[in-house]
Amino acid sequence: MNKFVVFHYLSKIMLVGSVIFLLPCAVSLYYGEIDCAISFLTVALTVAIISTPLAIIKPKNKQMYTREGLVIVALMWVIYPIVGAIPFYISGEIPSLVDAIFESMSGFTTTGSTILKDIENLSKGMLFWRSFTHWIGGMGVLVFAIAILPSSNDSMCLMRAECAGPQVSKIVPKGKNSAMYLYLIYFGLTVLTAILLMLGDMPIFDSICHAMSTAGTGGFGIKNNSIIYYDSAYIETVLTISMILFGINFSIYYFILAKRFKEIAKNTELKVYLLIILIATILIMIDIYPTYDSISKSFRYSIFQVASTITSTGFATADYCQWSMFSQTIIVILMFIGACAGSTGGGLKVQRFIIMFKSAKKSIKQTLNPKSINIVTSDDKLLDITIVHGVHAYLIIYLGLFLVSLLLISLNNIDFSTSFTAVTTCINNIGPGLERIGPTENFSFFSNLSKIVLCIDMLLGRLECFPIIILFSPAIWRKRF
Amino acid sequence: MNKFVVFHYLSKIMLVGSVIFLLPCAVSLYYGEIDCAISFLTVALTVAIISTPLAIIKPKNKQMYTREGLVIVALMWVIYPIVGAIPFYISGEIPSLVDAIFESMSGFTTTGSTILKDIENLSKGMLFWRSFTHWIGGMGVLVFAIAILPSSNDSMCLMRAECAGPQVSKIVPKGKNSAMYLYLIYFGLTVLTAILLMLGDMPIFDSICHAMSTAGTGGFGIKNNSIIYYDSAYIETVLTISMILFGINFSIYYFILAKRFKEIAKNTELKVYLLIILIATILIMIDIYPTYDSISKSFRYSIFQVASTITSTGFATADYCQWSMFSQTIIVILMFIGACAGSTGGGLKVQRFIIMFKSAKKSIKQTLNPKSINIVTSDDKLLDITIVHGVHAYLIIYLGLFLVSLLLISLNNIDFSTSFTAVTTCINNIGPGLERIGPTENFSFFSNLSKIVLCIDMLLGRLECFPIIILFSPAIWRKRF
Repeated sequence: MNKFVVFHYLSKIMLVGSVIFLLPCAVSLYYGEIDCAISFLTVALTVAIISTPLAIIKPKNKQMYTREGLVIVALMWVIYPIVGAIPFYISGEIPSLVDAIFESMSGFTTTGSTILKDIENLSKGMLFWRSFTHWIGGMGVLVFAIAILPSSNDSMCLMRAECAGPQVSKIVPKGKNSAMYLYLIYFGLTVLTAILLMLGDMPIFDSICHAMSTAGTGGFGIKNNSIIYYDSAYIETVLTISMILFGINFSIYYFILAKRFKEIAKNTELKVYLLIILIATILIMIDIYPTYDSISKSFRYSIFQVASTITSTGFATADYCQWSMFSQTIIVILMFIGACAGSTGGGLKVQRFIIMFKSAKKSIKQTLNPKSINIVTSDDKLLDITIVHGVHAYLIIYLGLFLVSLLLISLNNIDFSTSFTAVTTCINNIGPGLERIGPTENFSFFSNLSKIVLCIDMLLGRLECFPIIILFSPAIWRKRF
Repeated sequence: MNKFVVFHYLSKIMLVGSVIFLLPCAVSLYYGEIDCAISFLTVALTVAIISTPLAIIKPKNKQMYTREGLVIVALMWVIYPIVGAIPFYISGEIPSLVDAIFESMSGFTTTGSTILKDIENLSKGMLFWRSFTHWIGGMGVLVFAIAILPSSNDSMCLMRAECAGPQVSKIVPKGKNSAMYLYLIYFGLTVLTAILLMLGDMPIFDSICHAMSTAGTGGFGIKNNSIIYYDSAYIETVLTISMILFGINFSIYYFILAKRFKEIAKNTELKVYLLIILIATILIMIDIYPTYDSISKSFRYSIFQVASTITSTGFATADYCQWSMFSQTIIVILMFIGACAGSTGGGLKVQRFIIMFKSAKKSIKQTLNPKSINIVTSDDKLLDITIVHGVHAYLIIYLGLFLVSLLLISLNNIDFSTSFTAVTTCINNIGPGLERIGPTENFSFFSNLSKIVLCIDMLLGRLECFPIIILFSPAIWRKRF
């Protein structure tokens, strides 16, 4: 592996990335939180100073392949959340370093699980920072910094590693332009959400924070009881629609802008995604009707929770741990399904489920007719066997890591439901789970070991396993390819 | 599909199978339980009378393919447990028909979950029948009846459908001989276990019942607190070794008899299976040491539970629900792993895990070198891509059915751990689960709907999904292939 080029680009991205600390710094200053502002400034300057030397020296050998891309991405995602934890820690607002890293990792990976018992106790600057990490993490730290990379080929190497889903969607042929388009759509939708929230009498600060959390499908709120605090049907409607929109493959928006409506009509994933939301909403609505005794209320709570879970956001408007086990089980299953590929959402992704379903169906047919050929199609196109195989391998790796995590978490000796859903919610980047980590609870009671395991799960989920596994495989560091 | 041939063979097997009711009938007579004996005799005669006409008429078209084989097996496995439930029901010992079917299904599928609150209250004849269903179910109702089928090609069609594991092991080239060898080994090991148990001062009746339950890796005991009742290190040692032996691929025993030791040394599955047992035993032993404060006791309880779980037997010598969550999680993971392919054990099978692990590893390598070829090997032989693909498809179908079952069970509104492990334990044919279905509890409190779902799960697990799915797919009944 070309180690020098890895560290060169890493430093370059860190240098540019140090700028992101200035925004929460400005917010802190605006609210007169001097200590908070100093924390952010310190981090920004330190990062800039440390990363400058390696960023300036140009590597002799600029060769970069997929493996370099994967390692840069993985290292990036390990380093950034740790650096992002420092403001929490040095400002004293989160006194434990592990807790600070957990909170920051949960932010960047757009998970939204928190170790804070009293969120409202945090300063405005820190609250903004939490939501802002969601927003940055949503589209990827790297896509954000992609503008600095020289050739578009290199950018593609990085994007492939960071973008979610079984296939890399090629919206526009060049990586750089592609990133620009994605970012414009992302920015536009975030601003729109914020404005719509403000129109619902949500304070400006709250609106911006929630819009960013929604865009990244993160789920950090700024109130202890999440969205329950506002108790407004309008705000819930805006957030529900917004969450569903951010869970859609971003290529769809590009197709809309490019007026390529035929391609949208052909998109199976979009249809299945909306269908799952519809079915889950109806099932939960019927199930919780006796609790609320009102169709409109049941619908409102049901669709919000379904949208919040399938898109892996994790906002709450009701404590679903009070609902029946049937609704809770639907919620857990939605956690695994996740949003569309190429969105900011987590989970296994609807696209993977479609491919798995189709390949399983073919396999049953093949048992009956052993000589038939096993071909899987997607959106009327033949699907490359390596993609099908890749989806299968992903499932296996995902489940393997899931089991290992579950075993490590069980060392805490907490009940099975809590342990199981802690891993589920972290590896799928959702936020809350069941029982002791329900929507009104938090993760503070876990041991430090568990918190670190859950941090790794969040990373694995966000980067879809491969980059992190490769980062930790000794062969890649040893071998000269 | 050749429906006539299906019903012809089905009737033939039922006719031969009616004989199996005579053994528990004899046991009942021996113990002077006349009512009980009459129940068994009634069922035996009724089955014989109903199945005779179709069994006698020879089909004009004897053509039989895989699909006919799969449908015969599936129908067999639906009909037999229902017929087997009738003695429980008409004798009045299990007053609910659904409960009786659950108990019988749990017996034939070698699961070992029970709805009985007081097992010791049952008559000797019924206790014998419960263990005997395990013994028959273990090697397959069909292999049992295979002797009556005319051509060895037909037998292979059936065996392929009923035998567990990703590949059909070809021990001896002809199906009929193969079945005979397997049955001799099976019978011999059962007798050996029974004799060894008797030598440990276990009553003869108890020894025979436990030996049959062990051979089928079933887990029905004849005491309310399973093996805890005997509290004998010797008995536990015999059962532990016996369970581990019945979890091994039966080809290994054939190889031993044929003195083909090289093939045993090459068998990766055996090594991995024993290694998993070793690691799990050590981990649990360390974890439960503080509870028992004795290395020998910790080891004894640990290895028994590990053997009982991985082989999907389900006997208990300790209430593991009192152990820490770490040990409980290991037990749940062992439930999914299961025994070796080609054994009487359930679960996903060690062989599948090995194939999955290898194909996942290849997939990671391929991410780094996209042009490399994806080849998976097994025991130094190249593995056909369709087998790898089949294992993947099986995992997907298994997980899909798991989720659907979980959702249906959740309608009971029982805690998540109980619901989750109920599906786990039934689909993997283990027996007990966690929380409310722990080793000292039972399944009586589930609703009838849940019991039926769990029965279907047991069937799916025992037949490895495909035959049951095919049985319920309308296309197979409609289409003329």
